[in-house]
Amino acid sequence: MKTNAINLTEKLAKFSEHWSPRVVAEMNDYQFKLVKLQGEFVWHTHRDTDEVFLVVQGEMEIGFRDRDVILKAGEMFVVPKGVEHITRAKAECHAMIIEPRGVINTGEADSKLTANNDLWI
Amino acid sequence: MKTNAINLTEKLAKFSEHWSPRVVAEMNDYQFKLVKLQGEFVWHTHRDTDEVFLVVQGEMEIGFRDRDVILKAGEMFVVPKGVEHITRAKAECHAMIIEPRGVINTGEADSKLTANNDLWI
Repeated sequence: MKTNAINLTEKLAKFSEHWSPRVVAEMNDYQFKLVKLQGEFVWHTHRDTDEVFLVVQGEMEIGFRDRDVILKAGEMFVVPKGVEHITRAKAECHAMIIEPRGVINTGEADSKLTANNDLWI
Repeated sequence: MKTNAINLTEKLAKFSEHWSPRVVAEMNDYQFKLVKLQGEFVWHTHRDTDEVFLVVQGEMEIGFRDRDVILKAGEMFVVPKGVEHITRAKAECHAMIIEPRGVINTGEADSKLTANNDLWI
């Protein structure tokens, strides 16, 4: 058993790449990942799972085909499975993603932004 | 689909009871619950699942039989399934709990602190 608390700010200080989620914890078969967002991601869908975003610092947007949702620090949102979405951040935003182990960041999309999905930090 | 972000501070302002988790979101068959802790809970175990604590405000302690883990705002910890634990907070602490739907707060323990496990806010 790990014996220390996981400090999100300290973990975020350990990497700088955008759109490259880093796993910080696992709960059963789910992972907690930190990510730095800036600019615009790619439209994609996760067919088999919901996906949670929780903003730690800054502000991001989750775009859907019929609306946008703004998320500020201390706010979270559940993207329902099967719903196409895109993430955006005008200024760098730090967020936590919670989803099952093995989920690919770009979902069903073919993109150069597809990241290694099990990078721990 | 819900269309607004979930603001944790706003949700926390809506209740005051200690040791009474309130569900704010679901992801697949997992729930995100907010809880206000003050004082000492009860020793208990969740036989079938890990349990995550993420501190939003204040400071809490997760006691194990062989050590204590201190959690401050912005810090999280995964209590492994099957491991007996107790939560404590000297001053009121606000935290998020993430675990499967249906988990009872007192686990296997028989306690007057057992709360309704599906109270939404």
